[in-house]
Amino acid sequence: MPPPATLSASSSFTLLSPSPSPKPKFPPFSPKRHSFTINPRHHSLHSVPSSTVRCTVIEKETPEAQRPDTFLRANSSSSSVRARFEKMIREAQDTVCAAIEAADGGATFKEDVWSRPGGGGGISRVLQDGAVWEKAGVNVSVVYGVMPPEAYRAAKGAAAADHKPGPVPFFASGISSVLHPKNPFAPTLHFNYRYFETDAPQDAPGAPRQWWFGGGTDLTPAYIFEEDVKHFHSVQKSACDKFDPTFYPRFKKWCDDYFYIKHRDERRGLGGIFFDDLNDYDQEMLLSFATECANSVVPAYVPIIEKRKDLPFTDQQKAWQQLRRGRYVEFNLVYDRGTTFGLKTGGRIESILVSLPLTARWEYDHKPEEGSEEWKLLDACINPKEWV
Amino acid sequence: MPPPATLSASSSFTLLSPSPSPKPKFPPFSPKRHSFTINPRHHSLHSVPSSTVRCTVIEKETPEAQRPDTFLRANSSSSSVRARFEKMIREAQDTVCAAIEAADGGATFKEDVWSRPGGGGGISRVLQDGAVWEKAGVNVSVVYGVMPPEAYRAAKGAAAADHKPGPVPFFASGISSVLHPKNPFAPTLHFNYRYFETDAPQDAPGAPRQWWFGGGTDLTPAYIFEEDVKHFHSVQKSACDKFDPTFYPRFKKWCDDYFYIKHRDERRGLGGIFFDDLNDYDQEMLLSFATECANSVVPAYVPIIEKRKDLPFTDQQKAWQQLRRGRYVEFNLVYDRGTTFGLKTGGRIESILVSLPLTARWEYDHKPEEGSEEWKLLDACINPKEWV
Repeated sequence: MPPPATLSASSSFTLLSPSPSPKPKFPPFSPKRHSFTINPRHHSLHSVPSSTVRCTVIEKETPEAQRPDTFLRANSSSSSVRARFEKMIREAQDTVCAAIEAADGGATFKEDVWSRPGGGGGISRVLQDGAVWEKAGVNVSVVYGVMPPEAYRAAKGAAAADHKPGPVPFFASGISSVLHPKNPFAPTLHFNYRYFETDAPQDAPGAPRQWWFGGGTDLTPAYIFEEDVKHFHSVQKSACDKFDPTFYPRFKKWCDDYFYIKHRDERRGLGGIFFDDLNDYDQEMLLSFATECANSVVPAYVPIIEKRKDLPFTDQQKAWQQLRRGRYVEFNLVYDRGTTFGLKTGGRIESILVSLPLTARWEYDHKPEEGSEEWKLLDACINPKEWV
Repeated sequence: MPPPATLSASSSFTLLSPSPSPKPKFPPFSPKRHSFTINPRHHSLHSVPSSTVRCTVIEKETPEAQRPDTFLRANSSSSSVRARFEKMIREAQDTVCAAIEAADGGATFKEDVWSRPGGGGGISRVLQDGAVWEKAGVNVSVVYGVMPPEAYRAAKGAAAADHKPGPVPFFASGISSVLHPKNPFAPTLHFNYRYFETDAPQDAPGAPRQWWFGGGTDLTPAYIFEEDVKHFHSVQKSACDKFDPTFYPRFKKWCDDYFYIKHRDERRGLGGIFFDDLNDYDQEMLLSFATECANSVVPAYVPIIEKRKDLPFTDQQKAWQQLRRGRYVEFNLVYDRGTTFGLKTGGRIESILVSLPLTARWEYDHKPEEGSEEWKLLDACINPKEWV
């Protein structure tokens, strides 16, 4: 399958990723059976699979023993949007991971730091099989350098039709996370915020000609607690309303449209907000908006987990959660732009598929009883509702 | 995504399928919660998702109370290839289902019969959550009528470039099956045999201008018992060798190439045989060959199940089986032509996805210990071996 004709910010981000380590020859394997180990190259999550276009950006990541203060070059201005965005996502990563660990009450994230010789690096954190969390990943990356003209054209689509051939300086940075709890009453969360710059190649280096923001936060429960969904959407709306009254309705609909499983005629969950290619507002305003969104993740989500993580549940309720996890797998493998693009173009698979749940289930022709709690969830996935 | 530019027999078969029942409005649901019910429209399995091109062949299936003696028209000759192929796949369905039920020792297939107003019909059988079988489906369909010119062009690709516009008479018939056992030492089996005819539209009706056979049988274990894999491949080779000494090596390689999970650089299993678009041999010979292959399913597979179905296993071995089931999901959702084409073109999802396992698992960066039994399986999926 050819890559999509037009890739906008979420996919574009993947173009900027740390590049391909050569596929390791098989063997060797790691020395532990059924082990869970962290690989420094596994730094991306779906929607920001930052290792997906290794076929075009041929460069290998390097594991690092320590987190640097910044992944930017030493002479970078700390007041630039790039620097402030990096600072923001790294603080958000710390905050979210600390909140996830606190909610879990025991398990800790394993961290990998990597750098990219051409510029930048990232920090990957994964927690698997905790008390509360089945699988949780929170990754940041900050990468830059020069992208091949074909990658630029893929990123910009028709807008690059008049682009003169030649390498294009780029900068891409993002935070990406998928959090799958164990309890079927505790919802899955995905969030992802990213900032992107390219120069037109004929321009003086360093003069950004294009920049945009993308991202979103969305909730995927197996059961609806209306107060939870209202709370989640209220926090998203509050974050949006601080900046523009049109943001929440626009980005709420964008989210419902994006996370649509066409072959099921249903969404994977109950939405939230999603936006992409956002550059038609003041840049400072959008930086503040992305910051507000990222800072809203913990207050939007963790109170829900605290309320639901210890609720008793039946085997049938767990099986329903597993069926919904199957839908998550279907969305990510069949539709998610970053995932599908990454799979087709030779990205590192563990990085791309860390967003998949630990376990999932498919029953032939499963249909919940009309009026049941399972039916209500499915109905809300088929007919998106206004929650606030 | 546009459909693939060229579809050969396996996908072509899907063009001939009973057509779209209008998507039922939601609600209503069935009255049982977590129920397992059979829907008469669910008659296809992956590689033969016979309901996948409802967008082009708009016609609704009808449930039938009884199996007819034949799905062909009353005045059809019983000596035609069509009639003898139908007889063969229906006998194969009976034989395989009886053997699967006998191996299970308790569970029975639930059957649905359906007809297609434009011509033909099918018989779907699914067994779920038995003693031995997690999920087993064995479906046959025999459909014919007139296909829109665009479907004909999709089926034939470049070969249809000079095709004059106009409806094309077609006939398609096939058996398709995926059998997922519970015990991690008992392998999954997939098989699928199909026969296809089209008339060039300008011809007199009934004069077949094109015909071809397709199909294959492949084995997907989680653990290698070398005697099992050798037995399975030996039966495939014996079936092939009765017809042409080049068949087994050619179709064995075709199978290894087809069931390739590119993003993992591994096959989903240990192969078998696969062929498509086969028409460059005597038609009677290929009918006999397909019959021999279908008749080889039980002797190739059931003895393995009998030996392995009651072996004790650990939680870790079950988890490894579940990881391999995850690969099965990845292959079917990302690569299988019939499945992906069906998902993109509005096929009935339960029909297409009945091939998915009941449960599957994804662990971040799982790597079996070098030299372990899990490692040996993975190695054989990465580096296909000659088993006989």
